[in-house]
This record gives sequence, C-alpha cells and structure tokens, in this order.
Amino acid sequence: MKIAVLLYEGFTALDAIGPYEVLRSVPGWEVEFVAKQRGEVRTDSGALGVTADRSLAEATGPEIVLVPGGEGTRPLLGDEEILDWLRQVDTGTKWTTSVCTGSLLLGAAGLLEGRRATGHWAFLEQLREYGAEPVRERYVEDGKVITAAGVSAGIDMALHLVGREVSPEVAQAVQLGIEYDPSPPYDAGSPEKAPAPIVELVAAISRGEQS
Amino acid sequence: MKIAVLLYEGFTALDAIGPYEVLRSVPGWEVEFVAKQRGEVRTDSGALGVTADRSLAEATGPEIVLVPGGEGTRPLLGDEEILDWLRQVDTGTKWTTSVCTGSLLLGAAGLLEGRRATGHWAFLEQLREYGAEPVRERYVEDGKVITAAGVSAGIDMALHLVGREVSPEVAQAVQLGIEYDPSPPYDAGSPEKAPAPIVELVAAISRGEQS
Repeated sequence: MKIAVLLYEGFTALDAIGPYEVLRSVPGWEVEFVAKQRGEVRTDSGALGVTADRSLAEATGPEIVLVPGGEGTRPLLGDEEILDWLRQVDTGTKWTTSVCTGSLLLGAAGLLEGRRATGHWAFLEQLREYGAEPVRERYVEDGKVITAAGVSAGIDMALHLVGREVSPEVAQAVQLGIEYDPSPPYDAGSPEKAPAPIVELVAAISRGEQS
Repeated sequence: MKIAVLLYEGFTALDAIGPYEVLRSVPGWEVEFVAKQRGEVRTDSGALGVTADRSLAEATGPEIVLVPGGEGTRPLLGDEEILDWLRQVDTGTKWTTSVCTGSLLLGAAGLLEGRRATGHWAFLEQLREYGAEPVRERYVEDGKVITAAGVSAGIDMALHLVGREVSPEVAQAVQLGIEYDPSPPYDAGSPEKAPAPIVELVAAISRGEQS
C-alpha cells in the first residue's frame, strides 16, 4: 500500500505525524511525504521543518492520500495546483483521507460534495460551503473518503483505516506498538467537555489563526 | 520557556511530535529541535526527515529537555557526546523529560539513578540497569524528571507538564485546541488490555527492532 501525505507551509505537525506513525507500522505499507516541491516544509509554529521527499508531479498513484490541516490550508483553498493534484490522485485512490482542517482542502477540491464529513470543531460549519454535511464525530467514513476531527483525531482515524483495510488484529498490534492507551490528565478535549470560557477562548484563537 | 527536543537518526517521530504539538501551543513557549549536527535527521522508518535547527553545541540552557525514543537509542547508550550533553543541560533544566525508550538514554546518562521512571512497556525492565525503579504508569514524575510510557504517551505527559508548570486551564485550552478527546476504535493500547497473542507478537517485534 502506497500512502502519500501532503505537506504545505503552515501545516500542523501532529495532523500528519499521528496517522503516519500508525500507517508506517503496517507491514508492507509505505508512506511518502509530498509537497509542491521536494525539500523542507515548515509547520504552523515555524519551529519545525519536515522533509517532502517527493514533489506533487512525482507523487502519482498513491492508494491512500492523507491531507493534514493547519493555518496553511487557508491560502490553498483556491490553489489550483494543489486542488488539481488532489482531484487527480483521488481518481485512483482506495482511500482519500484528511485530518482537522485538511477536510477544507478536500472540500475545495470538490471531493466532499454530498458527503458526510468532519474536521476541527471550530471550523466544522465551513464544510457546508463545499456541499458537505458536517458531522461531530471523531472520524467519518463516507464511501472511500474518511475525514477526522481536529489534530489528534488522525491517530484514531488511521487505526480505523488499518482495521478496515487489513484487519482488526493488525490495527490492535499497531495500537499496542505505539502504546496508544490514552490517559489525558484533563477531560477537556472537545467543546462539549471543556469549560465554556476555555471553549470561547480557543475558538477565538483558532479562527484568528486561520483567517 | 525554552524547550529542546533531542533528535537522532532512528528516533520515533510521534515520540517527539506529540509533545511538541502540546508544548508549542503554550503562549511564550519556544521549542527547538537539536541534534549532533544541524540538518535533516531521519526517523526509524526511514520515510520521514525532520530538521534539527540547532547543534548540541548551540543548544545551551534549555529549561525543558525532551528525549524521544526509537530504535536509534540503542547505538547512543554508549555515546558520550549525547550523554555528556544530556548531563550538562540537565544541570540547568527545570524539567528533564523523555518518551518511550528515551528513558534509556536518560538512564545511560545517569539521570535516573534512584528514581521511579517509565518507558515503552516492552523495555521497562531495562531501566533497572541504570539504577531506576521501573513503574507501569502513563507518565512518572520524580523530582524534576518526567518519563512517559511508549510513543503516544508523550502527549499525556506534555499536558501534565503544562498543567504543572503553567496552569490546568492552559493545559485544558491546549487539549481542546488539538481536540485531544481520544476515541481509539480498539482497546488494545497496553499489554494488560491487548489479546495475549498480539502482546507476544509485538514484544518480539519491538525487541528485535531495538537490538
């Protein structure tokens, strides 16, 4: 299984690296990081650089494509080079996937038309602009498109994908390998659970960063 | 707060990127990736390159140091350049931390002597070689040293650290920002929970990779 993870300036690192760590653990699966050009791509914080080993032109025929989110999605929502590549690879993929605001890129490419989809809670309604039906779930599978909620949700989505595509046993082995037995010290990971003032603050910060 | 994340050939990406995503979200906190030399460092899978922006010599005086694990720890357990750097920065840190088999590096540097510590479940007993007391917890704080269990546990550890160092409210805001409301599709993230044949398989694979 050949997997392409799309990188672009201002992506959120964990959106890409969470699923990568799951998918790369499956025997025989190969992950490639791709971007407009080969070379270093910096994340949203600016503090981290990740290497794209392939340009879009070189990254043909992935069976799975994964689009992370991040502040950097905003300037790409009208970027025909990226959107064309997404449309083109989608014609051949077995699974087309996104994490967080990566779903906005899938939407802008026209790939969520009429589909149930999710993304970061603060940007969920924006999916309607692309003809998608926003759903508040950890990840949403609709046909061959799987979209995940914000940032860390990509780990859950990737385990689901491995279970669907290979077997629950392999997904469990991967989960055990990365000791994914989450035990967050707080229970504030969704707007339904976090205290209201914190939800308002984070919504304002998220939307400010994105626009 | 100045944070140094140590990189080396063969580290496990999520060990470093999980905590990075949490720590970089705290206002005023700055994360730097450091390695023996500046430049690209490849992860254990070989499929991912991450940039070290600073050499060890340039990375002086971090207030938090974070050591990820991975297959690449093995050749470093006797590497005096790395171990000296760890000992040196530890004299000035507020917090010295590790994820997964990163605790073996802290141990080899002599920093776990007489301390309770944890790491990836498959390598926990090895901590005794360094005078540490292995503990099966998600993360363990002993004095200023915090060690986390395998790979994904670094996210939980980093949230704990933010709560301790800044406030529970800021930690909750970060958790909400990365929508860390984990919902793994399987419950196999620890050897206590996974089916026995899967535990045996993953233990054999993990130890094979490490040696």
